[in-house]
Amino acid sequence: MFAERVRDLAHVGSVEIRTPTPAQSAAFFVDLLGMTQAAQRGDSAYLHAWDDYELFTVKLTAAATSGIGRTYLRAAGPDALRRRVAEIEAAGRGKGWVEDEVGLGPVYLCTDPDGHEIGLYWETERYQPTDALRPALKNQASRFPGRGANVRRLDHVNYLAADVAACSEFLAHGLRARPTEQIALDTGEVSAIWYTLSDKSYDLVYTNDWTGSTGRLHHVAFATDTREDILRAADVFLEAGIHLETGPHKHAIQQTFFLYVWEPGGNRIELCNAGARLLLAPDWPVVSWTQAERAKGQAWGLPTISTFHTHGTPPAT
Amino acid sequence: MFAERVRDLAHVGSVEIRTPTPAQSAAFFVDLLGMTQAAQRGDSAYLHAWDDYELFTVKLTAAATSGIGRTYLRAAGPDALRRRVAEIEAAGRGKGWVEDEVGLGPVYLCTDPDGHEIGLYWETERYQPTDALRPALKNQASRFPGRGANVRRLDHVNYLAADVAACSEFLAHGLRARPTEQIALDTGEVSAIWYTLSDKSYDLVYTNDWTGSTGRLHHVAFATDTREDILRAADVFLEAGIHLETGPHKHAIQQTFFLYVWEPGGNRIELCNAGARLLLAPDWPVVSWTQAERAKGQAWGLPTISTFHTHGTPPAT
Amino acid sequence: MFAERVRDLAHVGSVEIRTPTPAQSAAFFVDLLGMTQAAQRGDSAYLHAWDDYELFTVKLTAAATSGIGRTYLRAAGPDALRRRVAEIEAAGRGKGWVEDEVGLGPVYLCTDPDGHEIGLYWETERYQPTDALRPALKNQASRFPGRGANVRRLDHVNYLAADVAACSEFLAHGLRARPTEQIALDTGEVSAIWYTLSDKSYDLVYTNDWTGSTGRLHHVAFATDTREDILRAADVFLEAGIHLETGPHKHAIQQTFFLYVWEPGGNRIELCNAGARLLLAPDWPVVSWTQAERAKGQAWGLPTISTFHTHGTPPAT
Amino acid sequence: MFAERVRDLAHVGSVEIRTPTPAQSAAFFVDLLGMTQAAQRGDSAYLHAWDDYELFTVKLTAAATSGIGRTYLRAAGPDALRRRVAEIEAAGRGKGWVEDEVGLGPVYLCTDPDGHEIGLYWETERYQPTDALRPALKNQASRFPGRGANVRRLDHVNYLAADVAACSEFLAHGLRARPTEQIALDTGEVSAIWYTLSDKSYDLVYTNDWTGSTGRLHHVAFATDTREDILRAADVFLEAGIHLETGPHKHAIQQTFFLYVWEPGGNRIELCNAGARLLLAPDWPVVSWTQAERAKGQAWGLPTISTFHTHGTPPAT
Repeated sequence: MFAERVRDLAHVGSVEIRTPTPAQSAAFFVDLLGMTQAAQRGDSAYLHAWDDYELFTVKLTAAATSGIGRTYLRAAGPDALRRRVAEIEAAGRGKGWVEDEVGLGPVYLCTDPDGHEIGLYWETERYQPTDALRPALKNQASRFPGRGANVRRLDHVNYLAADVAACSEFLAHGLRARPTEQIALDTGEVSAIWYTLSDKSYDLVYTNDWTGSTGRLHHVAFATDTREDILRAADVFLEAGIHLETGPHKHAIQQTFFLYVWEPGGNRIELCNAGARLLLAPDWPVVSWTQAERAKGQAWGLPTISTFHTHGTPPAT
Repeated sequence: MFAERVRDLAHVGSVEIRTPTPAQSAAFFVDLLGMTQAAQRGDSAYLHAWDDYELFTVKLTAAATSGIGRTYLRAAGPDALRRRVAEIEAAGRGKGWVEDEVGLGPVYLCTDPDGHEIGLYWETERYQPTDALRPALKNQASRFPGRGANVRRLDHVNYLAADVAACSEFLAHGLRARPTEQIALDTGEVSAIWYTLSDKSYDLVYTNDWTGSTGRLHHVAFATDTREDILRAADVFLEAGIHLETGPHKHAIQQTFFLYVWEPGGNRIELCNAGARLLLAPDWPVVSWTQAERAKGQAWGLPTISTFHTHGTPPAT
Repeated sequence: MFAERVRDLAHVGSVEIRTPTPAQSAAFFVDLLGMTQAAQRGDSAYLHAWDDYELFTVKLTAAATSGIGRTYLRAAGPDALRRRVAEIEAAGRGKGWVEDEVGLGPVYLCTDPDGHEIGLYWETERYQPTDALRPALKNQASRFPGRGANVRRLDHVNYLAADVAACSEFLAHGLRARPTEQIALDTGEVSAIWYTLSDKSYDLVYTNDWTGSTGRLHHVAFATDTREDILRAADVFLEAGIHLETGPHKHAIQQTFFLYVWEPGGNRIELCNAGARLLLAPDWPVVSWTQAERAKGQAWGLPTISTFHTHGTPPAT
Repeated sequence: MFAERVRDLAHVGSVEIRTPTPAQSAAFFVDLLGMTQAAQRGDSAYLHAWDDYELFTVKLTAAATSGIGRTYLRAAGPDALRRRVAEIEAAGRGKGWVEDEVGLGPVYLCTDPDGHEIGLYWETERYQPTDALRPALKNQASRFPGRGANVRRLDHVNYLAADVAACSEFLAHGLRARPTEQIALDTGEVSAIWYTLSDKSYDLVYTNDWTGSTGRLHHVAFATDTREDILRAADVFLEAGIHLETGPHKHAIQQTFFLYVWEPGGNRIELCNAGARLLLAPDWPVVSWTQAERAKGQAWGLPTISTFHTHGTPPAT
């Protein structure tokens, strides 16, 4: 029975990344990814990718260790936000309203079953370029940097979770996200699942945390306009001494062209390009990959790197 | 006052293109764009781009002259379809239900104020590859062709219209499409306007028909995964003796990387690539370009080619 | 003491590849690499890459097993050819003149110390396209195929050799090739060495044959215009069920962007792209890589695949 | 009758560019093209492209007006240099030896018949990167910049000349360069001719100076690794307010993918990419283009821009 899609949340707005090496991490995002700093407050630098329309893309926060802070999701409108809040409160996952963030109006906080904090909001400050960053074309948020990887915008967040099934349930019913692909082990357990809020093929992903820890991050991904941007970025990272974990290559799942690196603070960062792939079908069936299919590695035969199953942030204790 | 977006129509599904040279036109779409023939009925060949999930992308119909037939738009669900039908009927633009198309269930027909026929539908047959066309990766509709331009999917349709304002009104209220960019002449008249149904920056476009004719086509566009695909396609078209009208270059409006050619039947076809650009903001303000801005030509300085304002299909009489 | 370079040999002209599966191998070169058949004689198909100026690029010969036949090297002129012949005869490596090859005049045969047969020639038949293959631009050998990997030309041949040092000596003094990079083991032994005849950074390569066999092939490489051609080719190979051995990735040595596959007959084929890299310096010093440097894998961290050290053709007995 | 090629000159080493706006021009080469400053002396900044093996690529000299100074050509060896000097002296085009240039040993000066000064040399200082510019891979001259257009190396120089035939004669017999393509007007006059010293399809070009002035520059070109680098550079130039004269597009002659801009001092700069195209044939016949063929514009139909025939530096008085 087809159930019409509820699209109360429009897209991932921004994400907070914690780092024990704030200066080096900021240099990574600015010099190597091509972002600019849009604001600074307390221990946090607010960094902007050149075509994100909101004030910031990444809130980079100095901390004792690495990991992910809040993920901010923008609602489709004020009524849509109210609908989500009501449903999340009813499910007992709500933490209430705050108004404590640069560039954002009231934010409704909640947590997924793994403890990752998620903030829902409608009101947002549009990015306003300074004269030096004003773009030549007015349908663009800010000037094209011509620097490093030139990431255009935030793409997706991939969480680690002790209980993927519970988190999946929260995404599907609390946030009304839509699953698009998954890995189903031979035991029947879903070990990873990809969810979308938009027409992109995924925005939020859960992967089983092999350590049983909670609240950890697998990676945050940023989109480039071309695969060539990612090949160029590989040289940029090589020269800068950044750890290139795996790639560039093409995923079998979701078919994303990817490169994974570890920013200086230890967090895994992905550069990704989907080409012209979108999931426009309102009734897209979840594509389920078996353990045997998964064992084949990536699309062009690259074995999945072992650190994909051992490295998350913060480090498990 | 913000009005929450109604997304009753999910995306452009397919389009009928008429041609006086059906064999040569079919060869263009198959050999040069990389499509395959999925079905044949009467005077029409149904052609499929490799990653469209529905049965066909283009219905190519032998006819006395060139031009566009129906544009098919898929609804977001059966209830969404009913809502659109009710609103269109109330506006007096409806023509009733038919069930006469390969691969589609009931189709509700209507016309825009310029006479272009539009069919709305929910039920659709998923593309099922033959063994020879079965893809290696199961999250893909059919085998990657490795041929010509390798267009991945239909991207958008650009109509010519005698009365752009009336058509714009129909798109906004009848179809609940959302305007994203426009050209506003010094007289205040909007001479072209870009509308989206999805998270793409445009799906349907109206441009003023300088001849005062009605029901004509400016171009149909197909998306490639990379800009390099379009550069390669330029060589393919050159070798095949296809008229390259303008490009490859980058539009200022919408920033699309483009190449325009005329298929053998005379219809203008665009290859386009948007990179990672999407319009994810639920409150995206329409970007309006002035006559002076428009006079600057395309993004990197290419003058807009004169035939853009003289060639449409069918030829004006 | 600088010795002026002798450039009596201009470039690698063509290579004979043996296959136990001639029909499938021909389909690989034609359908997937984008070559066309230029001639046929006996058990051999003569295949032409679209911008090679001579009659053929690959002589594909049906045989009991895989491997490499003659490598043809074109002289810089008739006098240059005579000079090479004199020197090779003096060194006792000559086998005399034959005139037995399609499209070539008199060929002087010799063998390297590992038994690979090499034919030197001056007279050659220029490729003449049929009407169907005539290019739109007359400074191009034949029509751009728009098919598969679209390889432009032969790039290099990498031999396996039981005694790399002896082969290296032959290349340096017999052929007057110039070494550009090498791997020097901790023992002092050079396990692989790259030689150029041209301004390209390499044309002929010797790698130590771990089996002690002689006369075997590591791979034959073809150049594409862009890295994107290679990324696209990876999808083409994936769909066709071709074994993708490793890549696409970038070599540390020579910095070539590469993809290795096994054609149906078992021979390893490389697609390569050097970007704008040329070795224009007349006094380029050989770049020597240590065992430790080599152990780091490829440029962006990909481990060198184990089959690189176990697979050669014909299979070692 | 085939005459064996004399390759006494190996390649174009560097070029002096004059600018009335030295600070802005330096910013163009450093910030937008991705060069670094290797030395400074008097009114000249010595700028280095990341993979040129010699000390500098461009000598940028503050001057009253724009234009080109010396072009430096490196000999194939000391004997080769002596041979060229003897021949040039005999032809009365020599100006004697100087030793006045940063990074170069003795330079033999001569002038072409249009008055462009050319310096021939053998001894040269290899580029030595500072720690900050040391590359990760030791077969590369300096660190990959990840900035702007990332030009890899100098590619070619295109002079304007009042008497193309005389200059052509000088290149062919004085420098022993080899012509590869030309434009022959209906009158029989050769209005432009492309010459190579190397395996590249051209290194030095003469175009008829419509003004009858002498010693002027049409453009200096730098090579990028990919066409995508050039597309990215177009955005970089657009943002920086640089005049994009024409392109990106593909030339019919020589098939180069190109973009022409005017650096702040007024000199025309080309970014170019040849893909895998090389002229390896020792007996390459000159490709001659007729006036009618030339009138068709560039490869994909772009009309040749009118300023190509009106803008040279310094401006004609």
